[in-house]
Amino acid sequence: MKEIDLRSDTVTKPTPGMMEAIINAEVGDDVYKEDPTVNKLERKLADMFGMEEALFFPTGSMANQAAIKLHTQPADQLICDKWAHVYNYEGGGASFNSGVSCKLVDGQRGMITAAQVEENINPPDFYHSPLTTLVCLENTTNKGGGACYDFVEIKKIRKVCDEHNLGLHLDGARLFNALVATKEDPKDYGKVFDTISVCLSKGLGTPLGTVLIGNKEIMKNAMRVRKVLGGGMRQIGFMAAAGIYALDHHVERLAEDHRRASELGKTLREQDYVAEVEPVETNIVIFYLKNFSDEADFMEALKKENIRISNMGQGKLRIVTHLDYSEEMHDRFREVLRKIKL
Amino acid sequence: MKEIDLRSDTVTKPTPGMMEAIINAEVGDDVYKEDPTVNKLERKLADMFGMEEALFFPTGSMANQAAIKLHTQPADQLICDKWAHVYNYEGGGASFNSGVSCKLVDGQRGMITAAQVEENINPPDFYHSPLTTLVCLENTTNKGGGACYDFVEIKKIRKVCDEHNLGLHLDGARLFNALVATKEDPKDYGKVFDTISVCLSKGLGTPLGTVLIGNKEIMKNAMRVRKVLGGGMRQIGFMAAAGIYALDHHVERLAEDHRRASELGKTLREQDYVAEVEPVETNIVIFYLKNFSDEADFMEALKKENIRISNMGQGKLRIVTHLDYSEEMHDRFREVLRKIKL
Amino acid sequence: MKEIDLRSDTVTKPTPGMMEAIINAEVGDDVYKEDPTVNKLERKLADMFGMEEALFFPTGSMANQAAIKLHTQPADQLICDKWAHVYNYEGGGASFNSGVSCKLVDGQRGMITAAQVEENINPPDFYHSPLTTLVCLENTTNKGGGACYDFVEIKKIRKVCDEHNLGLHLDGARLFNALVATKEDPKDYGKVFDTISVCLSKGLGTPLGTVLIGNKEIMKNAMRVRKVLGGGMRQIGFMAAAGIYALDHHVERLAEDHRRASELGKTLREQDYVAEVEPVETNIVIFYLKNFSDEADFMEALKKENIRISNMGQGKLRIVTHLDYSEEMHDRFREVLRKIKL
Amino acid sequence: MKEIDLRSDTVTKPTPGMMEAIINAEVGDDVYKEDPTVNKLERKLADMFGMEEALFFPTGSMANQAAIKLHTQPADQLICDKWAHVYNYEGGGASFNSGVSCKLVDGQRGMITAAQVEENINPPDFYHSPLTTLVCLENTTNKGGGACYDFVEIKKIRKVCDEHNLGLHLDGARLFNALVATKEDPKDYGKVFDTISVCLSKGLGTPLGTVLIGNKEIMKNAMRVRKVLGGGMRQIGFMAAAGIYALDHHVERLAEDHRRASELGKTLREQDYVAEVEPVETNIVIFYLKNFSDEADFMEALKKENIRISNMGQGKLRIVTHLDYSEEMHDRFREVLRKIKL
Repeated sequence: MKEIDLRSDTVTKPTPGMMEAIINAEVGDDVYKEDPTVNKLERKLADMFGMEEALFFPTGSMANQAAIKLHTQPADQLICDKWAHVYNYEGGGASFNSGVSCKLVDGQRGMITAAQVEENINPPDFYHSPLTTLVCLENTTNKGGGACYDFVEIKKIRKVCDEHNLGLHLDGARLFNALVATKEDPKDYGKVFDTISVCLSKGLGTPLGTVLIGNKEIMKNAMRVRKVLGGGMRQIGFMAAAGIYALDHHVERLAEDHRRASELGKTLREQDYVAEVEPVETNIVIFYLKNFSDEADFMEALKKENIRISNMGQGKLRIVTHLDYSEEMHDRFREVLRKIKL
Repeated sequence: MKEIDLRSDTVTKPTPGMMEAIINAEVGDDVYKEDPTVNKLERKLADMFGMEEALFFPTGSMANQAAIKLHTQPADQLICDKWAHVYNYEGGGASFNSGVSCKLVDGQRGMITAAQVEENINPPDFYHSPLTTLVCLENTTNKGGGACYDFVEIKKIRKVCDEHNLGLHLDGARLFNALVATKEDPKDYGKVFDTISVCLSKGLGTPLGTVLIGNKEIMKNAMRVRKVLGGGMRQIGFMAAAGIYALDHHVERLAEDHRRASELGKTLREQDYVAEVEPVETNIVIFYLKNFSDEADFMEALKKENIRISNMGQGKLRIVTHLDYSEEMHDRFREVLRKIKL
Repeated sequence: MKEIDLRSDTVTKPTPGMMEAIINAEVGDDVYKEDPTVNKLERKLADMFGMEEALFFPTGSMANQAAIKLHTQPADQLICDKWAHVYNYEGGGASFNSGVSCKLVDGQRGMITAAQVEENINPPDFYHSPLTTLVCLENTTNKGGGACYDFVEIKKIRKVCDEHNLGLHLDGARLFNALVATKEDPKDYGKVFDTISVCLSKGLGTPLGTVLIGNKEIMKNAMRVRKVLGGGMRQIGFMAAAGIYALDHHVERLAEDHRRASELGKTLREQDYVAEVEPVETNIVIFYLKNFSDEADFMEALKKENIRISNMGQGKLRIVTHLDYSEEMHDRFREVLRKIKL
Repeated sequence: MKEIDLRSDTVTKPTPGMMEAIINAEVGDDVYKEDPTVNKLERKLADMFGMEEALFFPTGSMANQAAIKLHTQPADQLICDKWAHVYNYEGGGASFNSGVSCKLVDGQRGMITAAQVEENINPPDFYHSPLTTLVCLENTTNKGGGACYDFVEIKKIRKVCDEHNLGLHLDGARLFNALVATKEDPKDYGKVFDTISVCLSKGLGTPLGTVLIGNKEIMKNAMRVRKVLGGGMRQIGFMAAAGIYALDHHVERLAEDHRRASELGKTLREQDYVAEVEPVETNIVIFYLKNFSDEADFMEALKKENIRISNMGQGKLRIVTHLDYSEEMHDRFREVLRKIKL
């Protein structure tokens, strides 16, 4: 009985086509900026979003942290949702790497509004408070259950940023899920954000890598920041090749992950033991058991079927669909969910 | 018409008796730890709280920031109220000086509960999240309007800290106000907290200075930290002498400040133009006008009478009573409050 | 005419055998520590050096910087040679990431002595000076022309470290070159150093990756530090597989690189235009032209032959032999060197 | 027998005239920038040096560290002499507070040349190395024995800084000693440096305080930086008053300290037990005993006479003359030096 691992969309392994791309990659030393495949991937993504520059990073955490560093000075403050990945799941990096504090906003499903941004800006001439210089959004939201921002709200946030001279960064760990779900144009994002981190290893299915894109001015120190964080690799073109392949073959198919997630949500809602399923907009399903005390039993029942999902704490359970979650697995999983008795 | 300045209790000037103490101070080079008056003040405060060590700092911000540094490692996280001075009014120092992020808790009037502390501790083995290592309380609370902690709750917080191996620091900017108002014993505080910053320049009326007290183990690097922050002064005994004088003469009289604040609260509650006055527990009165649009007129009316109070933003007005606010001024101010028409 | 690129041993590309290993690698999500190939590589290296723990990093810079962080507190000082990679070529990381200053020692060819270490330790009770807590060595030395430490001196340095409670880290960017050249046992290194970074991408010929090894106590926060620096990758087992292959097949052959480097040194010494060639101990040849003004002509002459070497500044030229530098290239390069007229 | 303390010029106590100035100082809350005496002192010093802005700091370390922060970004590098106070005696602050590394130059008596500055600048487009952005000089030099810079060399250094876009900061811990000794004009210094820290507590004899002066652009964040370091004090005008008094009464008299230091140098040179006395240019005398083994006996002999001087380590002894070292003490000290037998 093959394992069904839905803890995260980070667990995928390269498809045969992607593996072919890896094997045939032309590589060079990226520290000298001589890896043609890395350069091609960076160019491809910059163009796709209509931005000037792009830089490959080993991880999304580093790409986000580098962006924060590029936007801020030590003692500055950034504004983000209380559930933001940059605050909660990057090891305390904003403070560690950039000396920056995070003003946490009480948003909805990980998303904040322009009004909330505005009321959380510290007055720039009151030097007792940290200077607010950056807003970080996440789309789709991870802990918010894959929710997608309304682009109209994003444009309002941009306006507030312009009025108060703030940078605007997008943590695009699952940006392609949002783009596919909302049928939005990457170029619209490129116009609104100053920097965007685009992850290649979640829904897109590559082994690793995130590309940070932005315009020239903000990106001019990106190589320096990547270097000092220890992210300048050598023949990383092998992994970049997987990224190029993914952009060509794995974007549109995200709709399948979304459909399966939606169907899982429906199945869960039909079960007696489920208290609530959050709206499913992309590839993440967050739900709550009726009795928290049943959590261990529920996880155990799945484990017996060789199925793994995530426990996000505070009573939340999370399922993430992805490239390695096939229709066959999908049928079996729904079957299992229907049979569980708690 | 003499100015009545109630913006803060930091604006006081030395009394003749304190000035005498300053003039007659025996001083030495405190960088070599040879200033007898500084040493005496430090000893006096350590003994008063039943703790082993004490160190003089130029400001309360530096004393708090040094404490944070002594308790934490970069990338750690501390827990504090969303209104905490250490987060909001120390220039972003926790992140700047210590690389530490602040988990903001939605407390009541600047005070948090043991339960809130507990639920905000990150699991120590989940290395994605910052490691929680410190809890910072403030008593009385500044932005919370001089509210005093219930000592029973403080002891519960201590218990949570012990169970989770967290340090516990007290920002004692107005600790003597709390001690006088609640008739608590400083030694009880010394038993419960790992470090306490005791400000000498607010209610106590000295020109400057805060003493950080704590036990040996946590204080062993305090001199190093003070040095690297640039706080090791020379013949600062002149100011320490003011501190000794204040501890001898200005503690009990805080009750007068509290009475006057309470009477101001009563007077304000009687005025038509006041929407609400927060409970007055010590020397701070926070109130709200009925119509926010009257704020400018109200401040202007006071200004004409040469009276200054604080505008805390978001519709809050603040009055702080202190040593330089005499009974005569008090009568006049209440008279003025009664006459204002908005 | 195929390019001969001797700027660095970082420019190599995987051999067919290594490529096979990459293709067949079993991978998993290393963030969850579930990549079997990464785990195998880490175990293999820990065992090889007789140390308890090992952790894979995307780059040598990050592995070194993580080690510095694991050993130090902000405001500490480390001792290293004035040419040390950790000080000069990691983007200022010791200060940026760890808040640590570097006491630069005037060593010989990048190597320092136990006596020099001892005289550069700041007295620990003099809190005005940074506290000395770490010594960093590099073996072989990069800017020192691939020179190898005398292991007897290393043991003396260890003794000084023990006496003064200092950590001892080895930047092993080219450690296997040293081990092969001196026929030393990795286990002797494991006994003497607290942490060692072992690079897989230079002489060993993998696309990327460095493993940090050390004993449990010092390594217990390694995952946290890697996370906050942004170095926790996903299915990086593909690259780890190259590392395992390299350890099995590319260590002993470093002797070939050394022989060719030695022969290049000999050839250079015979040319009129060469002022001096530093002793060649491993795979690096550093030499100086008689007339600095000929530098451009010399580089141009090589370029015409499609040969690239490094200009290290201050009149130094550098050649680095490696896996992709074949005997045929070697013959041609020596021929070219003999024909150049300046 | 009154103590003669020549360990440092920081040990002085206010004269009656200065004490009078302290007592009569008009003060206010300097955090609100309402202390008229602080404002007057800042204006006075800015005008004296022909610069636009000035800000009072509790210590010289904080003023220097704030200057470094104002000039640099984390990961930058500053150039200074290997003996520089900012590197050696400020607790590792450049790295701790600013994330900046120090390129130590092997100067003469603590002074470096324009040529040395130039050759130590890292190429700005080579992102592997820290970006060089600041040069810090010290005049007079502390560990260099009170040596004074040749102003012609300073102007050459300024030129190099201009050519390479570097800031230029002066640590003026003993700047007035240099100005008096060389009869230079403060306004010439104001033209050449971007920032100058001027200490009031050494030769000038105040209890504490250093003023950082600079032009508007560089100083615009000075209040923010002082705040985050914890240096914003309240009624510090008492100490500023001492500073104003010192500038009016204690500058020219530094010539006396210099004469006495020079005479002590002469006396020492005449003694058998002295190996060497460094040239005495201002108020510091550095000398070496013939036999290092006599050091303890020598210090003991002085102690018996209630005389204290400094042991700088590595065989150096140091005498610093100052305001509290009277002619009578001078006669006695020289007498004692003549009588000592080792």
